[in-house]
Amino acid sequence: MAQPLRIALAGLGTVGAGVIRLLESNRDLVSARSGRELEIVSVSARDRSRDRGIDLSPYAWEDDMTAMAARDDVDVVVELVGGSDGPALALARNAIDAGKNLVTANKAMIAHHGMELASAAESAGVSLKFEAAVAGGIPVIKGLREGAAANAIEQIYGILNGTANYILSTMEATGADFSSTLKDAQELGYAEADPTFDIEGVDAAHKLAILAAVGFGAHIDFDSVDCEGISRVRAADIAQADALGYVIRLIGMADIEMGDAAAPVLLQQVKPCLVPKGHPLAHVTGATNAVVAEGNFAGRLLFQGAGAGDGPTASAVVADLIDVARGEIGAPFSVPSGELVAMQPAESGGRVGQTYLRFTVTDKPGVLAEITAAMRDADVSIESLIQQGRANDGGEVLVAMVTHDGPESGVSKAVELLSGSESLTAPPLVMKILEE
Amino acid sequence: MAQPLRIALAGLGTVGAGVIRLLESNRDLVSARSGRELEIVSVSARDRSRDRGIDLSPYAWEDDMTAMAARDDVDVVVELVGGSDGPALALARNAIDAGKNLVTANKAMIAHHGMELASAAESAGVSLKFEAAVAGGIPVIKGLREGAAANAIEQIYGILNGTANYILSTMEATGADFSSTLKDAQELGYAEADPTFDIEGVDAAHKLAILAAVGFGAHIDFDSVDCEGISRVRAADIAQADALGYVIRLIGMADIEMGDAAAPVLLQQVKPCLVPKGHPLAHVTGATNAVVAEGNFAGRLLFQGAGAGDGPTASAVVADLIDVARGEIGAPFSVPSGELVAMQPAESGGRVGQTYLRFTVTDKPGVLAEITAAMRDADVSIESLIQQGRANDGGEVLVAMVTHDGPESGVSKAVELLSGSESLTAPPLVMKILEE
Repeated sequence: MAQPLRIALAGLGTVGAGVIRLLESNRDLVSARSGRELEIVSVSARDRSRDRGIDLSPYAWEDDMTAMAARDDVDVVVELVGGSDGPALALARNAIDAGKNLVTANKAMIAHHGMELASAAESAGVSLKFEAAVAGGIPVIKGLREGAAANAIEQIYGILNGTANYILSTMEATGADFSSTLKDAQELGYAEADPTFDIEGVDAAHKLAILAAVGFGAHIDFDSVDCEGISRVRAADIAQADALGYVIRLIGMADIEMGDAAAPVLLQQVKPCLVPKGHPLAHVTGATNAVVAEGNFAGRLLFQGAGAGDGPTASAVVADLIDVARGEIGAPFSVPSGELVAMQPAESGGRVGQTYLRFTVTDKPGVLAEITAAMRDADVSIESLIQQGRANDGGEVLVAMVTHDGPESGVSKAVELLSGSESLTAPPLVMKILEE
Repeated sequence: MAQPLRIALAGLGTVGAGVIRLLESNRDLVSARSGRELEIVSVSARDRSRDRGIDLSPYAWEDDMTAMAARDDVDVVVELVGGSDGPALALARNAIDAGKNLVTANKAMIAHHGMELASAAESAGVSLKFEAAVAGGIPVIKGLREGAAANAIEQIYGILNGTANYILSTMEATGADFSSTLKDAQELGYAEADPTFDIEGVDAAHKLAILAAVGFGAHIDFDSVDCEGISRVRAADIAQADALGYVIRLIGMADIEMGDAAAPVLLQQVKPCLVPKGHPLAHVTGATNAVVAEGNFAGRLLFQGAGAGDGPTASAVVADLIDVARGEIGAPFSVPSGELVAMQPAESGGRVGQTYLRFTVTDKPGVLAEITAAMRDADVSIESLIQQGRANDGGEVLVAMVTHDGPESGVSKAVELLSGSESLTAPPLVMKILEE
């Protein structure tokens, strides 16, 4: 058997502890599949004294984690510190510059600095691997980068945030409203004390930008992700969707269009959407993640599993380590970073499809006429319209409608026409309807 | 860029033609992801003159396909001939012996001779890859072998045959009976003229034996797969299952138990099962395949997609070729073949779970008492029992029941007790109920 793969592990939160536990409990099979031992030689974290329930005494402790990059006895650095910049990025840069392989679970760092790190890793002839950065334990980076490698990927979309999916599917099951469901989720540990990144779609956007780069061979462009969260989704929207044959899910979606100049442009959106009940994503409940990739030969591929948690994330980290141990060094984003294409972001509004709109309006005559007139003037054709019979406590009435297939730009125009209206008590909630 | 990877392609049916079309239409991206050109240099098939809608003139034709293994200008042989033995096996052996990498879509050959071929490939230092042999375009071999490599796999199960799933899900949608649905499926091209391998579970058993070897690091043991098809499933069973909250699917299932001698034993079954509607596999309809792997750290992973067809299968073949081009040679079954464990097959009947039984009985007094007495004597506890009100044309009545959780051996005993009964017009249909 070859020499052990010597690992420096930075960051000892739940995932770091999970990696240590996994390498202990699955030691024999990991060695058999790697063709060599995986040996942690050095660890580092902010707080040495914290009780993590694991014995750290076998590993050399480094107070300064960036010093791990310089150790002669290390082949690969595992970065589990988190944060797009700061110590994580400093460690990643130093490790690669020192000729170490880098494995990371840090989606924010890859979404912001993945291009730079990939280019550096290629120059240094080392691996940069980040399976754990997207969708936890689901091997979707490998699925796109290798499993679907023979395909032109036409579209990538999915449920990329477990917290948001837990909240939406719980609202669906209980009929409860967003704020109380979020509160319960926080108490149960499914949502963080500050849930902003999860419920506003930022976490999903990080993952989407990474998937798009791998799948389409494009420059990572996190800043262009058009991002909207789930905090405005009401129990009434879920009930309406249900009556119409849909569920509501926070969907990250990326695809390629030919722009005006016939150069491909990249659409990246994270938004709550209506998903037909016959679609596989409609049945993804709880904190589960699921990613669909449509390939031009493979057709629709679905990868589903636990999107977070120490066990699943550790599984992905160690899968990357096994790849490194096997010597499987390849381009981090499937093609060499110099060949990744810088694509312009797609103008939103170019798509054709059905849309769900929900208005909160004052309970007075003429409101429906005003809304439907705006639709007419924007050339939006309405398939169905439901007005709730009774005003809620605030004297507010909900009007929901589904359009026929039509350009999204028409819907945007209708919303704009209504933007000054005194009949609307809040901006309308607009959700795309996924095709089955 | 490195030298081209030079390919000999044996077998020019729909999949072979699909591989040629894929390599033509996706040439640039395949080269970019491989780091080199993939170049077909030689082709062979039984009939040279047949019109396949593709131009074969760029490729050297070999009348004797085994001669391709000896060509100096070939790096990898792609075997798409089919059949567990005969020319396919001769070609595979010759290719490996001649130091060529081998890529195959041949599930029967791998299920029967995979151990021998893996061992030969390891000795020769070449790749043996068979992603296309299991579940068409779904990268599930890679998902198990690499994506879930850090996990002890606890169970692998799924929908492994598109024809059977098409028939069952169509029966579910239309209420039609098996034979008419099969006939329609044959007319639509979803079932072959001789559908035996698909509807009797043999095809699924080939795939299951391969998945079990990769997932558990076990010797392939196709002969021990306990296999039952779907031809006895009636429209009435599907209706009963629906009323109870289940759908019926042909499920291939493999897992490991500790046997009496505390040595692990391997359970492999292909059988129609009742799947709770809340389980992801319940929503897999049509010719789609789906595989679930339960890992001890990753939890439940689901891989879903098109299980057959020229495009998806070609996608898997070329993914293997890209791996070969990238130099990713590893143990075909995840660990070196010498380390694969020869496991005894599990005694059936050791499991505890719920079971669905359906009896066809003569319409006369005392039949129900006879059946329920047998259940009592075998210590099987009945959760629900439904007798159809009306006899069908043959004077035959259906009695369906669901047991409480209990050992499968009890159910087998009850069935045995009833085996001589004149009240039963046919052996009962017994189906396991999957847990959610």
